[in-house]
Amino acid sequence: MQEFKITFTDHDKSVAVPHGTDLLSAATKAGIILNASCGGEGTCGKCLVNITSGKIKTDSSRFINIPGREKGIVLACQTIVESDLVVEIPKESVATHEHMSHWAEDFAKGVILQREGLFKPVPIINKIYLELSKPTVDDNTSDMDRIIDALKIRVNGLRLSTRLANLKHLSEVLRESDFKVTAVIAYKEGAMEILSFEPGDTTAISFAFAFDIGTTTVVGQLIDLVSGAILGTRIAFNKQSVYGADVITRIVFADEPGGMEKLNSAILDNINEIIEDLINLCKINAGNVYAVVASGNMTMMHLLLKIDPAEIRKAPYVPTLSAFPTMNAREVGINISPKGIATFIPGVSTYIGGDIVSGILACGLAENEELTLLIDIGTNGEIVLGNREWMMGSAASAGPAFEGSGLSCGMKAVSGAIQKVAIDPNMDVRFETIAGSPPKGICGSGYIDLLCQMLKRGAISKDGKINRDTGSRRIRKSENNYEFVVAFAPETGIGRDIVIQDDDIENIKRSKAAIYSAIIAILNKVGKNISEVKKIYIAGGFGNYLNIENSIFIGLLPDVGRNVYEFIGNSSLAGARMSVRSRDALDVTNEIYRNITYLDLSSEAGYMDEYMAALFFPHTDIGRFPSVRL
Amino acid sequence: MQEFKITFTDHDKSVAVPHGTDLLSAATKAGIILNASCGGEGTCGKCLVNITSGKIKTDSSRFINIPGREKGIVLACQTIVESDLVVEIPKESVATHEHMSHWAEDFAKGVILQREGLFKPVPIINKIYLELSKPTVDDNTSDMDRIIDALKIRVNGLRLSTRLANLKHLSEVLRESDFKVTAVIAYKEGAMEILSFEPGDTTAISFAFAFDIGTTTVVGQLIDLVSGAILGTRIAFNKQSVYGADVITRIVFADEPGGMEKLNSAILDNINEIIEDLINLCKINAGNVYAVVASGNMTMMHLLLKIDPAEIRKAPYVPTLSAFPTMNAREVGINISPKGIATFIPGVSTYIGGDIVSGILACGLAENEELTLLIDIGTNGEIVLGNREWMMGSAASAGPAFEGSGLSCGMKAVSGAIQKVAIDPNMDVRFETIAGSPPKGICGSGYIDLLCQMLKRGAISKDGKINRDTGSRRIRKSENNYEFVVAFAPETGIGRDIVIQDDDIENIKRSKAAIYSAIIAILNKVGKNISEVKKIYIAGGFGNYLNIENSIFIGLLPDVGRNVYEFIGNSSLAGARMSVRSRDALDVTNEIYRNITYLDLSSEAGYMDEYMAALFFPHTDIGRFPSVRL
Repeated sequence: MQEFKITFTDHDKSVAVPHGTDLLSAATKAGIILNASCGGEGTCGKCLVNITSGKIKTDSSRFINIPGREKGIVLACQTIVESDLVVEIPKESVATHEHMSHWAEDFAKGVILQREGLFKPVPIINKIYLELSKPTVDDNTSDMDRIIDALKIRVNGLRLSTRLANLKHLSEVLRESDFKVTAVIAYKEGAMEILSFEPGDTTAISFAFAFDIGTTTVVGQLIDLVSGAILGTRIAFNKQSVYGADVITRIVFADEPGGMEKLNSAILDNINEIIEDLINLCKINAGNVYAVVASGNMTMMHLLLKIDPAEIRKAPYVPTLSAFPTMNAREVGINISPKGIATFIPGVSTYIGGDIVSGILACGLAENEELTLLIDIGTNGEIVLGNREWMMGSAASAGPAFEGSGLSCGMKAVSGAIQKVAIDPNMDVRFETIAGSPPKGICGSGYIDLLCQMLKRGAISKDGKINRDTGSRRIRKSENNYEFVVAFAPETGIGRDIVIQDDDIENIKRSKAAIYSAIIAILNKVGKNISEVKKIYIAGGFGNYLNIENSIFIGLLPDVGRNVYEFIGNSSLAGARMSVRSRDALDVTNEIYRNITYLDLSSEAGYMDEYMAALFFPHTDIGRFPSVRL
Repeated sequence: MQEFKITFTDHDKSVAVPHGTDLLSAATKAGIILNASCGGEGTCGKCLVNITSGKIKTDSSRFINIPGREKGIVLACQTIVESDLVVEIPKESVATHEHMSHWAEDFAKGVILQREGLFKPVPIINKIYLELSKPTVDDNTSDMDRIIDALKIRVNGLRLSTRLANLKHLSEVLRESDFKVTAVIAYKEGAMEILSFEPGDTTAISFAFAFDIGTTTVVGQLIDLVSGAILGTRIAFNKQSVYGADVITRIVFADEPGGMEKLNSAILDNINEIIEDLINLCKINAGNVYAVVASGNMTMMHLLLKIDPAEIRKAPYVPTLSAFPTMNAREVGINISPKGIATFIPGVSTYIGGDIVSGILACGLAENEELTLLIDIGTNGEIVLGNREWMMGSAASAGPAFEGSGLSCGMKAVSGAIQKVAIDPNMDVRFETIAGSPPKGICGSGYIDLLCQMLKRGAISKDGKINRDTGSRRIRKSENNYEFVVAFAPETGIGRDIVIQDDDIENIKRSKAAIYSAIIAILNKVGKNISEVKKIYIAGGFGNYLNIENSIFIGLLPDVGRNVYEFIGNSSLAGARMSVRSRDALDVTNEIYRNITYLDLSSEAGYMDEYMAALFFPHTDIGRFPSVRL
């Protein structure tokens, strides 16, 4: 078959692909992950590329508004290769994959820091150094019994087992090390397993990873199990995104021939790249990493474990399993020690996954005496209300707007994202970007500030329409409707204006309405008033900043005392990290997941009315937001 | 390299081997297992073959007495191929491998039968049929939780786990079977694991194997777990025998390049051939066999699991492990269901293996109130004394004489073996063979009868020399010394006289002295008299018959009331079978192995004196055998 050479000039990469290949696939083959949150459907408009030379076929009829189409700019996913090509990829089309340590590390503070100090530091991997008595004719018990006898006093009578592979040469290991060995012991669902025997005393060298596996973002942290220190953090875009932006499109894709393979490889690539990156950074041998603890939503877990997820998207929405047995990491495909384990935080149901259970662990909701609310704003919005007596959880179809997805200039909370915004009375905009880089787009917390400020300055109406009569140079007609320019091209890092459009505002309004009305629905279900809630934790991928005041102002969060609120960042990652550092914390997740009642909003009378009433800034019933004055 | 074709005419087999190959290896390659109890050292004289044509090189100087050497008869192990050859193999040179159901099945009697009825019939594999409620929006717990919830009431709160592989398509399995499935649950060291989910109700189809893995013999039984019935039994010579007759030579061989591989393959071949043979016989699908429970001595277990056995033969004789975690059968190399388990009866130390622990389970010694003695006469003699309060065990270096090994006409207790002997005053011999076949040799029980009768008729003296002055035509000079003809060539199935020689008697005398003196040494150690022992169980590969009276007469067993004795046959197999049929029985073995004290005879003062005094028929101190009148 005829092959064409595709050269991606600004990436110094070229790749040979057969006639008929689309450019999105060609870029993926070259190792360049493009933004494609619609999964290559041609609807999100993120995978723009510039054809410098060569022949293509492109279906322009289906395109959304593409600035500069006349100059050879096309959507990679809709463009078919018909000759050798030279292609330029604009920066904003590439899914950046950068070191974002501040993103998660900064969140070892507040309630998270308090909670991390609470659990006994007995990590998921326990290394015990043994100086065994040498066998004699009068004491010639087997090598393994000798070890078990020596360990018994220290492992509280938990049953100990080990794999056959560890036994094949145990007699040599013991004798070559003069009966001085370190037993590497893993904690697995209440039992103990000796993963390995290492010659000599290796107790000072012990590492593990905590992972949050999100639909759009994967975050990993390398933990030193001896000191408990976080040695590094990496955030990456979930590579599955090219096959679908949300869990539903991925489940559909998993059912196509080879689909599951691709999705599974993508997420494993994410995880293994983060592992490789961090162990190289810290000059650690993968053989000294014996555990990965990961939390994620139900679909992510099924795809990671290659378990058929088809039933998750069909009524009555049943996952194959929600609590996962501890597995050998290599069996799953995770590249730590071949003897290492992979442990997954259990979830409740299709809509309340291990990420939420992990968050409940992180903020302590399930142990609190007082009524506590956890709101996790990620690709969807999950809400859990309760205390140590009971818990009720629900999931709102909020969509990924607050993760920056589906918006014309939306982006993740990574370097270059506008995260804080202030607007002067004369419509001058000041903003702050993550890592202080020139702006590339707007992340969730930036949109919240932006909407709040635009409302205050009259740039948008209470029903979310851009006010075309302000006379500001920032407000102008766009191809579809109106838009507000947050940053003009010369100020940006992408050479294009960064804007917010009517459609973006509509999108965010629906998201905030879904979350707010879900909170109210749960409260109504259990007959509680928001004033009875003593603590509200907000979690989500907003970076390290979220303005609660502004969130209330736009009607995303209920209008209660500001001291009730605490923003806790990525609580899914924090819970996984706590479980790495302490078995007691991991045990708590096993109690949590069985104790949450799930509330299905779609079958809840009154929920739709609540939702409709919330499609307004801050709310149709302004009496609910007494502190908001427009 | 030049290859020669070796044709084994009476087996219709031929094989190509390189110049320099020995004929024992050539026969093995052709799938013909020759008797070679010395491991190819040229000392046992069992692997006789007849060279019909071709050129060989043979080292006759090292040969033991070979009848018919002048006619082209040579030892296969000492004969090097130097051209194409045509070879005949006499029947008695071939390790027979036959259906010997009577050997083990007949022993579901006496104490064994009683014990088998004692344990609750909850087999190691438990199939539970579930008609699950179908998920609804109000009851959308995960598939796995639905199953665990349904099982909970029936598995007594034991923790349940399963392998990842079972989960990949669980959602399909459940839905295609309309939520009617059978969970196949295995019992593993106090925990439970779901091995498989089978659509529909398959509880009526459930099988497992019990195995006794002996140094010289491997016996397997196929058990129907629904009825508990023994569906078939197979006995085979341990194929490792060609690499060494005893455990020591095999441990040495394991250390040679490729040695462990060969030994491991040999025993796995044995096991897998027995499995294949029995499932074919009973028309059973291997996929319906989910468990193998095996018992064997420490060396056999290490070689089966490919665990380095080197330390077993070096002081202080330490095995790598004596209690074995339950494993996946395929991981070990055993061909039952890929999801099936292999469980091994735990042993105590190098000298008291799982075969003895299994025997203790079978006869109930560890549960008895009264003082009980178990004597297992196999390749060595193991002795355990005790009751439910305490146990002491020891191993006597008895050698394999009672298994028919190392004797001029010795053979296993298989078809054609002389197992009962009577001698008239006029020296006429009457005998009975196993399966009534023409005699091929003499097995252990036959030798005991023979010695007893020869002593009574004055054919041998009390110190074990053949009396050359009886005038009987049966007593004649042999090449080495004197011999007694038990069966003349025309009466036999091998066309040669079956004899007992002075050297054979000396060999048996040492064996019986080692066993008797070990019994006395243990009694002395704990300050007990043999009269305080209320029950003595004799186990071993004697076939289904052992004359206790005659065993006492030759001084093998202490002279106490005959009703104290019970011959229980292959108790290692019986214990494995009990453990297949009942988890409670398996649990007992885990209690037994920790509670036995091992007595090392070599460091025991007075043992050598006891042994020397026992080198006489019945004993130097005739006062110890009051009922024996010569």
